[in-house]
Amino acid sequence: MKVSVLRIGHRLVRDDRITTHAALVSRALGSDKIYMTEVDHSINETLEEIAKRWGGKYDFAIEIIEDWRKVIKDWKKEGGKVVLLTMYGINIDDRINQLRKEDRVLVIIGAEKVPREIYDLADYNIAIGNQPHSEIAALAIFLDRIFSGKELKKDFRGAKLKIIPMVKGKMVKEMENNV
Amino acid sequence: MKVSVLRIGHRLVRDDRITTHAALVSRALGSDKIYMTEVDHSINETLEEIAKRWGGKYDFAIEIIEDWRKVIKDWKKEGGKVVLLTMYGINIDDRINQLRKEDRVLVIIGAEKVPREIYDLADYNIAIGNQPHSEIAALAIFLDRIFSGKELKKDFRGAKLKIIPMVKGKMVKEMENNV
Repeated sequence: MKVSVLRIGHRLVRDDRITTHAALVSRALGSDKIYMTEVDHSINETLEEIAKRWGGKYDFAIEIIEDWRKVIKDWKKEGGKVVLLTMYGINIDDRINQLRKEDRVLVIIGAEKVPREIYDLADYNIAIGNQPHSEIAALAIFLDRIFSGKELKKDFRGAKLKIIPMVKGKMVKEMENNV
Repeated sequence: MKVSVLRIGHRLVRDDRITTHAALVSRALGSDKIYMTEVDHSINETLEEIAKRWGGKYDFAIEIIEDWRKVIKDWKKEGGKVVLLTMYGINIDDRINQLRKEDRVLVIIGAEKVPREIYDLADYNIAIGNQPHSEIAALAIFLDRIFSGKELKKDFRGAKLKIIPMVKGKMVKEMENNV
């Protein structure tokens, strides 16, 4: 299954760190793209730097967009499904079997308030619990559920560095000509 | 099982939003306490406000601390286990059975760099994947694994408001005298 992420409602400066986390989580937990609006463009450099070191250069992209409505409409026109993560939705565990059968999913995460319109545009309104918490946490658990935890052992091709998991401390292996 | 969270390495202002997310995730996903250093104290008000509306007033606490070493040492002295979440650790799925058998766990999340000392103090160094992403995401998946997803349907007592999960839109029920 292909999963892309659409982040809407970024508030300048205030949300910079959160948005960086959203992009990093999208990449690390198996989605192939994040669409974002009004973002500090340095986020592209951060992600390029990470791909250079930790791999997966061709597996993940950031696209800065102007109009999220267009992204959603194009996605649906091409037969993809749209999922809004919201505390008001149906619990993920009551829809996960159905969701896993989809081919292409666009998962939307927002800042505090999401325009009413999106609730109607979405094919699924999914809650990662019905308590307020964090769109980063919601995205992480969503991706983890969708990919059944397998994304945590995903291989990122072309990494310069690879972690050797350790009981204590850090071990990092330098890879040679890994493309 | 009881799980508390220790957040270290908050950088003033820059990390305020991330730290708020850390506290909200700790509360929503079933931990009973978060210890934090050097934090904007308004975070207490935010969490109190949320407990008033969404419940669980007596189930979750924030404790502002000065010395994280003391928190860790006291925790271990009382027989609790300490888990550091780090991309350099052992994959969560290779330790989850063992972790679920523990009675009391203190899970440590840090900002970018965590003092070397903590790797040695921790009983477990656990990776939520070996790629860089977000301590909020790592904490969320950790709690979700530890509590086997049941935390997403946890009842928060004494809520003024309760969400009725909806396929579309929002439905919130006002609770009467719910203590």
